Amino acid sequence: MIARAMILFAHGARAPGWAAPFERLRTLTQARLPDVDVSLAFLELMSPRLPERVDQLAAEGVVEVALVPVFLGQGGHVLRDLPVMVDELKAKYPQIAFTVATAVGEAPDVLNAMADYCVGAMPSNP
Amino acid sequence: MIARAMILFAHGARAPGWAAPFERLRTLTQARLPDVDVSLAFLELMSPRLPERVDQLAAEGVVEVALVPVFLGQGGHVLRDLPVMVDELKAKYPQIAFTVATAVGEAPDVLNAMADYCVGAMPSNP
Repeated sequence: MIARAMILFAHGARAPGWAAPFERLRTLTQARLPDVDVSLAFLELMSPRLPERVDQLAAEGVVEVALVPVFLGQGGHVLRDLPVMVDELKAKYPQIAFTVATAVGEAPDVLNAMADYCVGAMPSNP
Repeated sequence: MIARAMILFAHGARAPGWAAPFERLRTLTQARLPDVDVSLAFLELMSPRLPERVDQLAAEGVVEVALVPVFLGQGGHVLRDLPVMVDELKAKYPQIAFTVATAVGEAPDVLNAMADYCVGAMPSNP
């Protein structure tokens, strides 16, 4: 049984292909954390929603859940919606240690990789 | 006069601090494209909106605009809203060559940097 889990928390969207890069991110992360159950959960429009996913993990006996908001900026979803959900989950599952990371888009190395991409996106750049 | 421009196109949000990483991305990109006018524009909730920003650049005589969607997934905003706006801008400004990049979140190096961040976000990871 895997007792530790990471949830990549994303917004969700109506377009079915929207989650493709998040699935790739999950696969990349899971490969490097073989002893951790790495999964996606969504705020809205896609399944599973975050509370639903935590219910599943709790039923499996997970005792540690690391939440990583896969958002570019820290807006209302990360600053307001997520803390409310996490507080409810902490109250519901006192046996689980929850941590919440800063949004991925705030990470300097992620920003540097995005800048590399932007520079390369300029056509006819000498 | 700078005749070439890049617009980093982001969603926008109500939280004032939301745009901070996008501002840092703009600064990083601008530093590496000194001959290009690099700016931010938003879909909603923040200024300038994309058409407004293109109006400004057109008035300045810009003849090339590279649009980079700073979105993680390619959802309705990137797949539907943006092409509609770009078509209108192309019709309005036939003298400007527009290009539209794939969303930054689809770039493999960006995904790899996000995976690095996720791995580091697992507490007590040996």
